[in-house]
Amino acid sequence: MQRTQAMTSVQPDWENFHPRPISEKIPYFSRDGRLYDCLFAQQLNRELLEHLFKTATALKAITRKKDGADHVGNLLSDKRAMLYFVQPSTRTFMSFLNACHILGIKTSEIRDTSTSSEVKGETPEDTVRTFSSYVDMIIMRHPAPGFVEKTAWLMNRTGRPVPIVNGGSGKDQHPTQALLDAYTLYRSFDGELDNKHIVMVGDLKRGRTVRSLSYLMKNYKGVSLSFVSPKEFRMETDILDFLKRHNIPFQETEDFKGVMKTADAIYMTRIQDEHDKSGESKAVDYSPFYFKQEHLKLIKKTCVILHPLPRRHEIEVSVDDDPRAVFWRQERNGMWARAALLAYIFGVDGKIK
Amino acid sequence: MQRTQAMTSVQPDWENFHPRPISEKIPYFSRDGRLYDCLFAQQLNRELLEHLFKTATALKAITRKKDGADHVGNLLSDKRAMLYFVQPSTRTFMSFLNACHILGIKTSEIRDTSTSSEVKGETPEDTVRTFSSYVDMIIMRHPAPGFVEKTAWLMNRTGRPVPIVNGGSGKDQHPTQALLDAYTLYRSFDGELDNKHIVMVGDLKRGRTVRSLSYLMKNYKGVSLSFVSPKEFRMETDILDFLKRHNIPFQETEDFKGVMKTADAIYMTRIQDEHDKSGESKAVDYSPFYFKQEHLKLIKKTCVILHPLPRRHEIEVSVDDDPRAVFWRQERNGMWARAALLAYIFGVDGKIK
Amino acid sequence: MQRTQAMTSVQPDWENFHPRPISEKIPYFSRDGRLYDCLFAQQLNRELLEHLFKTATALKAITRKKDGADHVGNLLSDKRAMLYFVQPSTRTFMSFLNACHILGIKTSEIRDTSTSSEVKGETPEDTVRTFSSYVDMIIMRHPAPGFVEKTAWLMNRTGRPVPIVNGGSGKDQHPTQALLDAYTLYRSFDGELDNKHIVMVGDLKRGRTVRSLSYLMKNYKGVSLSFVSPKEFRMETDILDFLKRHNIPFQETEDFKGVMKTADAIYMTRIQDEHDKSGESKAVDYSPFYFKQEHLKLIKKTCVILHPLPRRHEIEVSVDDDPRAVFWRQERNGMWARAALLAYIFGVDGKIK
Repeated sequence: MQRTQAMTSVQPDWENFHPRPISEKIPYFSRDGRLYDCLFAQQLNRELLEHLFKTATALKAITRKKDGADHVGNLLSDKRAMLYFVQPSTRTFMSFLNACHILGIKTSEIRDTSTSSEVKGETPEDTVRTFSSYVDMIIMRHPAPGFVEKTAWLMNRTGRPVPIVNGGSGKDQHPTQALLDAYTLYRSFDGELDNKHIVMVGDLKRGRTVRSLSYLMKNYKGVSLSFVSPKEFRMETDILDFLKRHNIPFQETEDFKGVMKTADAIYMTRIQDEHDKSGESKAVDYSPFYFKQEHLKLIKKTCVILHPLPRRHEIEVSVDDDPRAVFWRQERNGMWARAALLAYIFGVDGKIK
Repeated sequence: MQRTQAMTSVQPDWENFHPRPISEKIPYFSRDGRLYDCLFAQQLNRELLEHLFKTATALKAITRKKDGADHVGNLLSDKRAMLYFVQPSTRTFMSFLNACHILGIKTSEIRDTSTSSEVKGETPEDTVRTFSSYVDMIIMRHPAPGFVEKTAWLMNRTGRPVPIVNGGSGKDQHPTQALLDAYTLYRSFDGELDNKHIVMVGDLKRGRTVRSLSYLMKNYKGVSLSFVSPKEFRMETDILDFLKRHNIPFQETEDFKGVMKTADAIYMTRIQDEHDKSGESKAVDYSPFYFKQEHLKLIKKTCVILHPLPRRHEIEVSVDDDPRAVFWRQERNGMWARAALLAYIFGVDGKIK
Repeated sequence: MQRTQAMTSVQPDWENFHPRPISEKIPYFSRDGRLYDCLFAQQLNRELLEHLFKTATALKAITRKKDGADHVGNLLSDKRAMLYFVQPSTRTFMSFLNACHILGIKTSEIRDTSTSSEVKGETPEDTVRTFSSYVDMIIMRHPAPGFVEKTAWLMNRTGRPVPIVNGGSGKDQHPTQALLDAYTLYRSFDGELDNKHIVMVGDLKRGRTVRSLSYLMKNYKGVSLSFVSPKEFRMETDILDFLKRHNIPFQETEDFKGVMKTADAIYMTRIQDEHDKSGESKAVDYSPFYFKQEHLKLIKKTCVILHPLPRRHEIEVSVDDDPRAVFWRQERNGMWARAALLAYIFGVDGKIK
């Protein structure tokens, strides 16, 4: 990848930049007409999504044989990535780490701030800039909303930017989760995402994944959404407004059984009680929003069941054996979709076919 | 390695499966007549042991030169392993990690459950299944007895099993330690393990290594064992019964000096006070079970001294310089024996010669 | 690298060895006229420094293209290094780790003693010897002064030594920091380090980096030093005596503005309050030892500003955009200089050009 000039001269100050609508910010995180920093689900348009899906599928196929795996494992053997995960997340971490290894990217890890020199009084900006010195990419998960975006913004002001990939930022954005969810739908529907009825179930208010996935839906035609949740955890209005603006029909309901019959996909989520302020989740009866063995005979033969995992009791374990339960495949799709994204950012996607 | 069908249809429930004798369980952890999951020392029969010993020795020789090391380092370049070590064990961890690196296997690590999503209320089974999504093998150490076996059993029920290697499970099984101990004896005796007098010394009751090694002894002819321990830490009766069933002569004694003179190998162990219930180890005088500089002149010229390490005071440091002290080589043999095992499981052992 | 015989016969006991002057100890840490263990800044003479600088610069240039990066990344593909960092230091750790990856060295990590088997009562010497079993090199950072040297001394008594590289030992030695500082001066001055006026600023008493860099200055002609610090944190007399012995002119002052005008390089440091005994740093007014935006117009057009990082407030962030601020490049130089050192120790430096 040809390194591009720093954007110091053209880039506004953070205070001025940050509040802008995402659509206005996207060009700052692109290079030569390509996504450079992957920060928002909104950066993933239909064309790019389809390209990444095809790349992911090709990666999976090619690497089944050793010579294919070695070809792919050599594509980015000259690259080094840092996984800066200061918010606990073994799952996303492992998915990205192995995605790097598939492509031959060498990895280093920060999984805990206590070992970091932040203890010596350094600003987080300096810390991240330091780490960027050693590597060609930073994959970052951070509890503070906006921190990952700010890092990318900051990097782009320096003479030696590296691409920043958002592995989960605060409770707002988790674009690669949206990517893998959409990829799982794409695989489940044999490439045809238009005209589907998608049912999202559970703690929609605080679920980053259902929020990001809703954004992506504007890329597809004839999609309708059902939001099934306890009244305490209804989807936030910013998403509902977004759907209205893009003429995507949706309904809100507490009647899970009622909507599951016409669903093409059911997206289950767990209660996000780590975001509780004072144990409010305990007051909610979540059991009407469980998918049980007995529901399998109610849903369509072609309906697929997704879950971003980890699960608690939202899906009965015996459901796992049904071929329509695709959440384990979804987990694995995540690694392939992320590998496709990294290959694309480094510009070697053309060599995967 | 060709992936085999899930065994869902033929595999009994865990509650029914787990209590069976190990000999009955072995077929469930094999594929095409080969060990697939390495869980129990009892899976390592004489033929397999000899094969692994030869492979380990070949690995060591071939990798001495760079082109040999590069050949070996490319054998499994398409594979990814996860080291899931939720019980502290830097030694075994490092040994396996470097064994992977020798073969070109890419690695990812869980060394602490606190970063795991277990905190989000996931079952351990789901956690392990998640991790298996990203990799081709899990090497696992876990404090709960039976957990590693259960993982392998569970994996084999899914549509995408990966081999599970036991890196130490509860206080019951640690098969690769037995493998490396036997390999060290094999190397020390120039390949001739029959007709030896093996003396095991120390905390035999709670020492996983001496237990596993005792099991392996049934593979050899004319072996006799001496168990030297304080009366509080005598070898457990399950092992003694096993030896009786297989007609392996043994004696129990507190007279270390008396038996060391005829020993072909002395296997030293430390007191395992981490398993104390209420500091009972402190009441035991362990010093009669130390190997001291002065003992070097009592033992045979060909006798070798082993220790699984770490040591405390069981072996005087000045003993290290004697050529019969092989415990440092034993440490290193562990890495090679483990590399041989991994190569065997992935079916590339035939390419190491 | 041909393995050399253990030095047991010729090497004196630690108690006798340790107090000797470093110049006498250097031969014990060399092999075939080459540095083998990198422990002290004093081991880096001018000839070796120049050679490492050239190697570092070549590494940087060659790896810009993928085929060059792959060539370099294959030079040490048969080697494994352990990074044993039991003192927190993400920065130095990451720099070394990525230096290893550039050369294809496989890495394993100890970043925390709590996972180590030190908990089982093992001596630190046994622990390190164990780790050395698995690898071809140990890169070590340790809080105890002399521990890294003792490890190298101990390794050299065994039959299977591996080179030990000091990544920071107590508050006394940090030779690769000195190496990278000198390399940054070398790059900034186009290879001409003689006849320069170097100004060191801040907590000179407890700053390992300024101490090590001062030692290196004896390698250059006509260098003069200015030490600018609050009186509480003046440079220690052992360094001042060293400079006198080598006829290197220096001055001590609190007048930062006065000396900066004639500086060719200004080396800024932060207050090292982690070494405070009882919060004494808080009583010191450190602000006269800050480099501010307004100073940029006072210094020479060719003067460069260094800082070992992390910084607090010693350098105003707006200074970063000035081309004379080279501390971010310095950070990156560290990785290349360390890669050059590792390549040299393993004897593949001749293949980098």
